[in-house]
Amino acid sequence: MEIVLLGTGAALPTKSRCTSATALIRLGEILLFDCGEGTQVQFQKAQLKPGKLSRIFISHFHGDHFYGLIGLLTSMQLNGRQKPLFLYGPKGLSEYLSFMQKMSLFTLGYPITVCEVENDLEENIWDFKEYSITALPLNHRILTLGFRLEEKPRPGKFDIKKAEQLSIPDGPLRASLQNGETVVLPNGKEIKPTQVLGLERPGQTVAICLDSRPCQNSVRLARNADLLIHEATFDDSRKERADETCHSTGAQAAQIAKEAKAKKLLLTHISARYEKNDAEEFLAQATRIFPNTILGQDLMRIEV
Amino acid sequence: MEIVLLGTGAALPTKSRCTSATALIRLGEILLFDCGEGTQVQFQKAQLKPGKLSRIFISHFHGDHFYGLIGLLTSMQLNGRQKPLFLYGPKGLSEYLSFMQKMSLFTLGYPITVCEVENDLEENIWDFKEYSITALPLNHRILTLGFRLEEKPRPGKFDIKKAEQLSIPDGPLRASLQNGETVVLPNGKEIKPTQVLGLERPGQTVAICLDSRPCQNSVRLARNADLLIHEATFDDSRKERADETCHSTGAQAAQIAKEAKAKKLLLTHISARYEKNDAEEFLAQATRIFPNTILGQDLMRIEV
Repeated sequence: MEIVLLGTGAALPTKSRCTSATALIRLGEILLFDCGEGTQVQFQKAQLKPGKLSRIFISHFHGDHFYGLIGLLTSMQLNGRQKPLFLYGPKGLSEYLSFMQKMSLFTLGYPITVCEVENDLEENIWDFKEYSITALPLNHRILTLGFRLEEKPRPGKFDIKKAEQLSIPDGPLRASLQNGETVVLPNGKEIKPTQVLGLERPGQTVAICLDSRPCQNSVRLARNADLLIHEATFDDSRKERADETCHSTGAQAAQIAKEAKAKKLLLTHISARYEKNDAEEFLAQATRIFPNTILGQDLMRIEV
Repeated sequence: MEIVLLGTGAALPTKSRCTSATALIRLGEILLFDCGEGTQVQFQKAQLKPGKLSRIFISHFHGDHFYGLIGLLTSMQLNGRQKPLFLYGPKGLSEYLSFMQKMSLFTLGYPITVCEVENDLEENIWDFKEYSITALPLNHRILTLGFRLEEKPRPGKFDIKKAEQLSIPDGPLRASLQNGETVVLPNGKEIKPTQVLGLERPGQTVAICLDSRPCQNSVRLARNADLLIHEATFDDSRKERADETCHSTGAQAAQIAKEAKAKKLLLTHISARYEKNDAEEFLAQATRIFPNTILGQDLMRIEV
């Protein structure tokens, strides 16, 4: 998997930080988490193809997390998209899309499925073939979803040498073994997948928690995750302000990562008040608690 | 007056052309015509202060003309705006603002007055102290307003030398004369404004017509204007496509400027298909018809 940060700013976009948007690329498929104003142009700058977008997750309905959604959807239409798209978010997403289409007298012409979660959500799991996405409510001013993408384990690597030693012919029999099925060779010999596959490859896990005060659901989402992407709107000197506005500091995000035993922490949703030369101290406040921390920048790419 | 082009792109924004937004600066006041996605960041890039915005005019409800409005309004709130703001556009603007505030559970905290025009609009004139704005419907797929800002003539320049020769004391008497009022001096002598003021200074006129097929209302709006800002989505080789989609070519915009006897033409709303190296030919198609034509670029500034 690869993470591409499209927008690492907070409520107010700046020339160097767009509002929230995080792309997750997985085997050619793009999943987008939040879609602040300007995300469609960030796709261009990052050389990502919106045609590869399959799912968009909106954490909550504060403008800096979704004002770019409608522009992205309509631009994909103008570019001839026909492929289905799945949208996930709090209740209200569907009504919003209907309202916008009615207002401009247009109809989005490709299939859009909207999956909304209710305001009294406790836990929601969307289960797909190769991964699942868990959504939990965070601690913010309005219903806000944190997400955990968990890849399912993949079968081990196919060992061609062993297959040749066992005289397994090239073609469908090998494919069946790769899929975990026992096969019978033309000579009557039974072959089990374990005879030709390496060790099962564990999936990777990414958690995305913004916007929120530090909370236990963030810890749950980030439990043993390979990467936690957490908001850090403020630095530690503005802890009170963070609490008042239901946000976190970088140090608080680091505390979550530590408690959850996450492997890496990526800070995003950085307030416009911080300049480039504040970065070192901003980051240091987090790394003192959780050393493996990165301060996000727009268009940064991180391998998971 | 000064025009600052914030977005000169058409439906699809690109890295070099944002969607529609045109700022008009007049004696420190900013008027904004359309507000496509990303306009608030363009304000920053152009070093314009949104605090100086007094009026926003939305031509129509296609996304590339208003998807940046809500972000600009909410960011001004976050930046502590208290000054009133006036919004003008087709019917629906008010409902849109209500919907967005309800969706995100917030209230815009500074006074916003929304002036909507009805779908059967024939002509609408907003008359202000120093200028008037006329709105006429253009020829597009949904109700679309073209605008004409016409400054009222200003009194002539105050001639300090003449005032001294006439022994007019510094202070309120001079101010009254500047405002066009006859005054009586302490010595009983009556002074008329014409005795100290130069020739009345004519106002400037700017017309803004996008999006539209070529139409007579654009000619009316641009009549003798100092500057016509007209859409030119396509070049002349795509005349049919322009007609099908209710847009104009650069040459058609030039024809409007010529017929209206405008003094200068500024082309904007340029389709994303045109690259920088197409600019020369794109512009030439217009200048053959109307020589005083400029091809708009994002962040370009034009004195009127």
